[in-house]
Amino acid sequence: MALIIQKYGGTSVGNIDRIRAVAKRVIQSAGRGDKVVVVVSAMAGETNRLIELGKTVSRRSEGREFDVLLATGEQVTTALLALAIEEEGRRAVSFLGHQVQITTSGAFSKARIESVNTVRTLEALNDGYIVVVAGFQGATREGSITTLGRGGSDITAVALGVALKADRVEFYKDVDGIYTADPAVCPDARMLPKVTYEEMLEMSYLGAKVLHPRCVEMARRNRLPLIVRSSLNFNPGTSVVTEEEIMEYAAVAGIVCDKNQVKVSLLNIPDKPGILAGVFTAIAEDEINIDMIVEDTTGADRATSVSFTCGSADLGAAEKAAKKITAKYPGSSYAVRSGLNKLSIVGAGMRLHSGVASKMFTALAREGISVYMVNTSDIKVSCLIEAKYSELGVRTLHDVFELGKPQPRKAARTAKAARK
Amino acid sequence: MALIIQKYGGTSVGNIDRIRAVAKRVIQSAGRGDKVVVVVSAMAGETNRLIELGKTVSRRSEGREFDVLLATGEQVTTALLALAIEEEGRRAVSFLGHQVQITTSGAFSKARIESVNTVRTLEALNDGYIVVVAGFQGATREGSITTLGRGGSDITAVALGVALKADRVEFYKDVDGIYTADPAVCPDARMLPKVTYEEMLEMSYLGAKVLHPRCVEMARRNRLPLIVRSSLNFNPGTSVVTEEEIMEYAAVAGIVCDKNQVKVSLLNIPDKPGILAGVFTAIAEDEINIDMIVEDTTGADRATSVSFTCGSADLGAAEKAAKKITAKYPGSSYAVRSGLNKLSIVGAGMRLHSGVASKMFTALAREGISVYMVNTSDIKVSCLIEAKYSELGVRTLHDVFELGKPQPRKAARTAKAARK
Repeated sequence: MALIIQKYGGTSVGNIDRIRAVAKRVIQSAGRGDKVVVVVSAMAGETNRLIELGKTVSRRSEGREFDVLLATGEQVTTALLALAIEEEGRRAVSFLGHQVQITTSGAFSKARIESVNTVRTLEALNDGYIVVVAGFQGATREGSITTLGRGGSDITAVALGVALKADRVEFYKDVDGIYTADPAVCPDARMLPKVTYEEMLEMSYLGAKVLHPRCVEMARRNRLPLIVRSSLNFNPGTSVVTEEEIMEYAAVAGIVCDKNQVKVSLLNIPDKPGILAGVFTAIAEDEINIDMIVEDTTGADRATSVSFTCGSADLGAAEKAAKKITAKYPGSSYAVRSGLNKLSIVGAGMRLHSGVASKMFTALAREGISVYMVNTSDIKVSCLIEAKYSELGVRTLHDVFELGKPQPRKAARTAKAARK
Repeated sequence: MALIIQKYGGTSVGNIDRIRAVAKRVIQSAGRGDKVVVVVSAMAGETNRLIELGKTVSRRSEGREFDVLLATGEQVTTALLALAIEEEGRRAVSFLGHQVQITTSGAFSKARIESVNTVRTLEALNDGYIVVVAGFQGATREGSITTLGRGGSDITAVALGVALKADRVEFYKDVDGIYTADPAVCPDARMLPKVTYEEMLEMSYLGAKVLHPRCVEMARRNRLPLIVRSSLNFNPGTSVVTEEEIMEYAAVAGIVCDKNQVKVSLLNIPDKPGILAGVFTAIAEDEINIDMIVEDTTGADRATSVSFTCGSADLGAAEKAAKKITAKYPGSSYAVRSGLNKLSIVGAGMRLHSGVASKMFTALAREGISVYMVNTSDIKVSCLIEAKYSELGVRTLHDVFELGKPQPRKAARTAKAARK
């Protein structure tokens, strides 16, 4: 008898019919003798509606009272799902964040989970209830309602999974699982039956919006098995597992493309100790989210150039910061290039296969795609390219690394055995 | 420096502009140096919308999960009002039922308040915050969310007023105050500057839907001054006070008419001890809300007739109960008359003036209005009449008791002095 966390996103509970379908699905799982805790998001569009409502009375868009407002979205879905499950004849009980209790920091609209109390949930499970938990929310030690920010409900699910020592967390999405590339761009993209935590984490950071990096990282640290699957069919989906659970890999598992990137270069700034620290402290103070950083000292003597990338939402702030910094150093200047995409290949197999990066560069060059910046880790290579080439780039790399063919991604042992 | 509870109903917070207006009004009160706790209802129509949403997934219409669902209505208004107050530059903090903490019984959808903790509210008031409390909701000792049923937000306001030892509770409604009669029926109806708790209580029971009897009774027991006034203008409204605070009264303060009444008569049932107990236990088991009861033994020997009234919503159930009861007694029968209204005169001055009831009956008879049942207490007389005569009845009694003329309702002393 397993203990399973099932998490349903906003689209999966987007209307009454879907909520009824979720109720049936949850009951089916519970019917196999498993204990089931369901975590739900707000109905699709509801959180945005509440934010807009709040903005009509307030120039702010976050803070304590916004969290009180937003938390009602998940509260409604939680109650409706519990009612729908009871309507099907199974006992269900809903718990809000403060009831579970999920205790968080006091950083409203982006609170961090500090602890999860399992007493009430375990009691209810042992009494035969299906437990429905409101995602995205918690409460401070003093009892103020908080929300967890982007990906919040996914994080609720994993935090509950860890605290309850669940056998797995199942994420029900409007996609079938994790693909080798975006199927809308690459018709021969395949669903991956398994990916490692590290691959999933890189993909999340690189712009695949299926799971939030915070929740993948939390699962990885606790070796909690995750499954990403569709709420609209019964396909098995993608399992996120440890490396030991996959015997053989190809070098590359998937291609990710992150849109709306901007590159800012600071040219001919003095090359002296502490200069980079000064530059990036100034940028951080303007709350610009920096992604890649490259320094190049091959220019003029005792001078250096630094480039960084950020999302295009930060373009204005980044340009202002660049202007301010270069104004301090006579002879220096700055350049901004927008309309870029970050194209990445990800695969834990890269550690064992050499020549992956050069194969990538060669393939892009053959198609006339210029690379404006490169960044690598042990399991990914990212290239900044012009946005207009992004689809071509994805398809080119998908072909070159033969991702359309079935891969030899076999399970080493069963998930259960591996965790012992 | 006074401590004031202000309660705003669903119409008063029915849209964003009204919420902004409430924020300004609350700040104005706080600006006079008073400590202000605001209790809000859900935006007009929202509670019904949530009930309908719940009913689409569940055949039930109450229970634990319905309360979780309904509580979001007040939660949204509470957050929006706190945001609107902060937008005007004053500090505000919202508290939900479980945060206050308002501890209730576990009777979902009609929970009773057991205790109100004042610690957090007093702390926030002393720190200079305007406190905004979600009406209509509380939580059980175990932490389940509950709602208080009809009139719930008014009850929250009075319970907070009692617990915080407030100087007064102000109810902001879409009416100017308590009138001598419904102004829509009686053009020369006047607003009463003062009524006693007892009069207010009778009026509430008799169908004046301004305040719920539960909240009037709670205020009366604790001698907590109430004010009923409009949220749309700055008229002083009606004060609800103790009898000692009014020096002279006319016999009658006001006329109330309660629509949709049904009279059920059980005829020729055996006149033996315990028979009435048996009848009304049977009726109570069917959850029929009985109002007036009259027994008449002037009929056949060793037999009696009993009549009772209830709302027309209970007509079917009442008829069924009558059938069941009379089936047990050979020779007995039952009769049902619907389409009745209960017309009442209320006034604490009746205790000092005689002949009030006969004046009422004479006036009605003069207009050809038959009376089907009579019920009296020390401060009211109620007559059951045909619905078609109700407006004529109201106007006739309003004239006969000269309620259109200014009354000698003077304050004996100031409210403050009276409470010492």
